[in-house]
Amino acid sequence: MPQILVSEVGPRDGLQSIAAVMPTPAKLRWIGALAAAGLREIEVCSFVPPKLLPQMADAADVVAAARELPGLHVAALAPNLRGAQAAFEAGAAKVTLPVSVSEAHSLANVRKTHAQMRDEVAAVVALRDARYPDVKLEAGLSTAFGCTLAGQVPEADTLRMAVAMAQLGVDEVGLSDTTGYANPAQVRRLFKALRAELGARAGGAHFHNTRGQGLANVVAALEAGVDTFDASQGGLGGCPYAPGATGNIVTEDLVFLLESMGLDTGIDVDALMAARAALRDGLPDEPLYGHVPDAGLPKGFTYAREAA
Amino acid sequence: MPQILVSEVGPRDGLQSIAAVMPTPAKLRWIGALAAAGLREIEVCSFVPPKLLPQMADAADVVAAARELPGLHVAALAPNLRGAQAAFEAGAAKVTLPVSVSEAHSLANVRKTHAQMRDEVAAVVALRDARYPDVKLEAGLSTAFGCTLAGQVPEADTLRMAVAMAQLGVDEVGLSDTTGYANPAQVRRLFKALRAELGARAGGAHFHNTRGQGLANVVAALEAGVDTFDASQGGLGGCPYAPGATGNIVTEDLVFLLESMGLDTGIDVDALMAARAALRDGLPDEPLYGHVPDAGLPKGFTYAREAA
Repeated sequence: MPQILVSEVGPRDGLQSIAAVMPTPAKLRWIGALAAAGLREIEVCSFVPPKLLPQMADAADVVAAARELPGLHVAALAPNLRGAQAAFEAGAAKVTLPVSVSEAHSLANVRKTHAQMRDEVAAVVALRDARYPDVKLEAGLSTAFGCTLAGQVPEADTLRMAVAMAQLGVDEVGLSDTTGYANPAQVRRLFKALRAELGARAGGAHFHNTRGQGLANVVAALEAGVDTFDASQGGLGGCPYAPGATGNIVTEDLVFLLESMGLDTGIDVDALMAARAALRDGLPDEPLYGHVPDAGLPKGFTYAREAA
Repeated sequence: MPQILVSEVGPRDGLQSIAAVMPTPAKLRWIGALAAAGLREIEVCSFVPPKLLPQMADAADVVAAARELPGLHVAALAPNLRGAQAAFEAGAAKVTLPVSVSEAHSLANVRKTHAQMRDEVAAVVALRDARYPDVKLEAGLSTAFGCTLAGQVPEADTLRMAVAMAQLGVDEVGLSDTTGYANPAQVRRLFKALRAELGARAGGAHFHNTRGQGLANVVAALEAGVDTFDASQGGLGGCPYAPGATGNIVTEDLVFLLESMGLDTGIDVDALMAARAALRDGLPDEPLYGHVPDAGLPKGFTYAREAA
């Protein structure tokens, strides 16, 4: 039975994109509820200066606490060497480095040119190799499908950046539709090309649902062999530096999609929907999205693991 | 350049599913705005007893007026012989007969067993053949992917009903996910099988977005060769006899999906979004959905017809 990894990014991408700050204990209850629903990987925070993103000031504490959850792969985002070092020290099992294909977005998001970002990634790889060899490093290519600042992004640019990152020594290169520009034809082409170029280092897909195309893009990515998808509970999230970009694809709807297609996620949808209560407790005023939470599971629904 | 027919069903499926009654002049302004945006086929009404659906009491007037719009293929729904006769007399170019694969849904929706429905379709075909040979007849198979009353619907049942309808002499058999149960794997299988069984009589896809899977299912249907998709502006609509079913896939988001994939719809997205004003004028209190209307077109967006 084919298995798909759903990587929950709500505690990072979701929480960093809203004005409210979720208290640490509430974050941990929410992350615990997500893990209890069967999520095996959660990106729990971003290691950035608290002055820039006060929502993430407790990053080290959150990683330390999340590591106590049995079987959970604790991931974190770090935009630079300093953040990556903090993530390594805190004990993250995986660190994702956001690398913009669009240089305009790179300057807006991490204030670095492409050349500066390559140097930063090289330094992070060197530190990991020297002192934290068990930590997995991913380059997440932002604006891989288009950019609100630069417009259309040539596919060759995305592939060139992916190859450069693999050559620098990251373990995986994922593609992010930061801005909701991707379409299924493009997704299929780019992920097929990524796999052809990088082989086992071709990473997962990170889609936003800005224009309602998120799950359509998942279908295309599945066809290209992608087996890891980021999503956020309730569709929380976005990119503060990409005007108009709304949240990630909704975890609840994604898991329903995958399971109903016969793809095992290991996740219990009812428990996942119950985890929304923990999110609401911590962020009472934030709107949550998702169709499956409203409509419920269909009559006679069976999980892939039951049908197999 | 591949061409896709987007068939707007909001004036029928949308308007029949809400409590408010849209005044006839407002309907006609809306239909006119949709046609002006490039929609080549619009299902403008349903021929049902006004006592059951007062929203559709002006069906004949709406068909007559819509026929005046240059180049528009005017479609209507009719659940029985009486309705079909009225649709023929009013001048509809295409009449769709809703035929439930689930007998429980058939009894709830049109108060007919499968056997009674087959007789009804046979009578409609006979009348069309005798007196209205130019009118195209479609059987739209409701609950083709699952049913809120019966639960899962075996794929063999859907195919058997499709073959039966083709044998009765309808021109096309389309598949409807009335209840938002469909998933892309099932959609791909069923439409491929439909095409294998019916050849050129294999019809289009009618998806609801109940569980947020509508556009994902479109991607799968495209792969199976489907080239006609129903949608409703603003996602207006649903099925009053399928509890929990929400509206059709959103025309605006569908057209963006198709055009960005390089599939020509002939539709102008800005004009389509402008048509929402006509819908709002006629139904000021009804919520409208859609991501593209909120987010706008991406920077540098090009239509399939421009890119080719």
